Amino acid sequence: MDRTGCTAVRRSIAVLAIIFAGFTTLRAQDHLPSWNDTAPKKAIVAFVEKVTKEGSPDFVPPGERIAAFDNDGTLWAEQPVYFQVFFMEDRVKALLPQHPEWKHEEPFASLLKRDMKAVAAMPEKEIVKLMAATHAGMTTDEFSQIVTEWITTARHPKTGRPFNEMIYQPMVELLGYLRANGFKTFVVSGGGVEFMRPWVEKAYGIPPEQVVGSSAKLRFELRDGKPVIVKLPELDFVNDKAGKPVGIQKFIGRRPIATFGNSDGDQQMLEWTAAGSGARFALIVHHDDAEREWAYDRKSNVGKLDKALDEANAKGWTIVSMKDDWATIFPPTK
Amino acid sequence: MDRTGCTAVRRSIAVLAIIFAGFTTLRAQDHLPSWNDTAPKKAIVAFVEKVTKEGSPDFVPPGERIAAFDNDGTLWAEQPVYFQVFFMEDRVKALLPQHPEWKHEEPFASLLKRDMKAVAAMPEKEIVKLMAATHAGMTTDEFSQIVTEWITTARHPKTGRPFNEMIYQPMVELLGYLRANGFKTFVVSGGGVEFMRPWVEKAYGIPPEQVVGSSAKLRFELRDGKPVIVKLPELDFVNDKAGKPVGIQKFIGRRPIATFGNSDGDQQMLEWTAAGSGARFALIVHHDDAEREWAYDRKSNVGKLDKALDEANAKGWTIVSMKDDWATIFPPTK
Repeated sequence: MDRTGCTAVRRSIAVLAIIFAGFTTLRAQDHLPSWNDTAPKKAIVAFVEKVTKEGSPDFVPPGERIAAFDNDGTLWAEQPVYFQVFFMEDRVKALLPQHPEWKHEEPFASLLKRDMKAVAAMPEKEIVKLMAATHAGMTTDEFSQIVTEWITTARHPKTGRPFNEMIYQPMVELLGYLRANGFKTFVVSGGGVEFMRPWVEKAYGIPPEQVVGSSAKLRFELRDGKPVIVKLPELDFVNDKAGKPVGIQKFIGRRPIATFGNSDGDQQMLEWTAAGSGARFALIVHHDDAEREWAYDRKSNVGKLDKALDEANAKGWTIVSMKDDWATIFPPTK
Repeated sequence: MDRTGCTAVRRSIAVLAIIFAGFTTLRAQDHLPSWNDTAPKKAIVAFVEKVTKEGSPDFVPPGERIAAFDNDGTLWAEQPVYFQVFFMEDRVKALLPQHPEWKHEEPFASLLKRDMKAVAAMPEKEIVKLMAATHAGMTTDEFSQIVTEWITTARHPKTGRPFNEMIYQPMVELLGYLRANGFKTFVVSGGGVEFMRPWVEKAYGIPPEQVVGSSAKLRFELRDGKPVIVKLPELDFVNDKAGKPVGIQKFIGRRPIATFGNSDGDQQMLEWTAAGSGARFALIVHHDDAEREWAYDRKSNVGKLDKALDEANAKGWTIVSMKDDWATIFPPTK
């Protein structure tokens, strides 16, 4: 090898060294550009740096870096009503020719009239009736196909954007930042697990097996000799409030070290996370930006944030003001 | 840099090149030394090579390389009775001072007399009674602690080895081989999920969140202001037979491309796997080695293999003869 060859080799090594340094430093400013340089971002970065620093008393091995994220109001918007309700509305419309009586029958009539105030205030029993009519009776594969079509074609009534673009850009960046630091990220949502799995991987980089949600009972059967799994019109598990730490235990089997929510429905999983030994991180997204998103908390029918806000203040959990702490809300239009 | 320095650099690059080549070729002979060079090993390697070869019509992206493994009789032994029954026996003994009546009361009496034939033949109702008495009433953290202690101290009655050493060395190698090829490996077992999670990571390299099993209901509550999750004496989900594909859908949310079982309890998840589109792999471990392990199939109370054996033969699923196809059964004594 002559001197020129040797120089080329040295250059290759220098390039490799830069690439490797890039992998190991993972500076937060590269990962969280949509976060303003305010307290929440600083708290996130400080937490990640201390749990990933080998030899530090707060070090957590990569396998135990479990992070749980609520979905509605935490990863994507939830106004004027949970987006799964819009999906139900479209399903009811699609099925209406076979069920003309729904036009005058509750809970269907309110949904068809888009009386979202009535829908948001419905008791669980009515919601289950809607779920049974719109989310059951088909195979899991068929349902997944329906959701996949819907998520790319339906549009949000206010913004006109597809629902999978109504996600929060700062949270998408946060998910990536955590994963780049050895975290395993999970969705832990009150939404239907079969409703979320078809699109969350593309939206958030979270695979189907890392989604915990509410569910209906399922049945395995042979149809024309072909095995299928059928969705039944019967509730199996409600992953909300005290159900969220239970869902975490059932599906993940270990306590998260970091949990992100936005409403009273997330209070118990935030408590469960914060009460673990070692360094823990609990964060609440506060919807206070009526201009760029929506402003609501203690009195809202959707995503009510009241008791959890008091507890966050009392216990020093991180509270994100969407108005002050986020430079951008939604991703750029595609 | 002088010539010597340059040579040193070239040597480093050569070493790096060898390391990288090692990562990319992943030759099976390095990964499956406890498998004889017979048909099952060849079938496994051929399957892995075709689904991982980019550009091949059978290529499966890494994220979709889901592999499901039954536990009892597939990853560890299950004779003379499922090992969780030995755990129950030890729990009943530990709790006997507070329940002297158990000595003469079924189902406890049979268990205490180690009448494993009676225990193996017990209807589900009786097993649930045993589970309620031995697996409930404590927090999930407390239960995990009890299992962790038991798995390292209890001994198998025939071999005298700890139960977590009664695992199959060829299957441990297979798990590693699959993971090295981008597969995500899951346990999908009829055993209790909370009973498996504390030790499977060390034994098989499978983290708690990749364990699907049977479960009891759980409740979140505050004890002295501290959040805990309590195990209730009520069955939640039985992950066996037709429950296994349901468990896969509930907890994983996508169909495995490769599934490994040993009994009729695995038949439906093998069917569910094999019926998927694209390349699929279904394997049954046949216990036919009375000398090094146990020999049983169609008539056994534990791990009965009858209908699934017929289906495996009819559909050309891979059948492993422990006697002929495995060079070693258990890992070397520690």
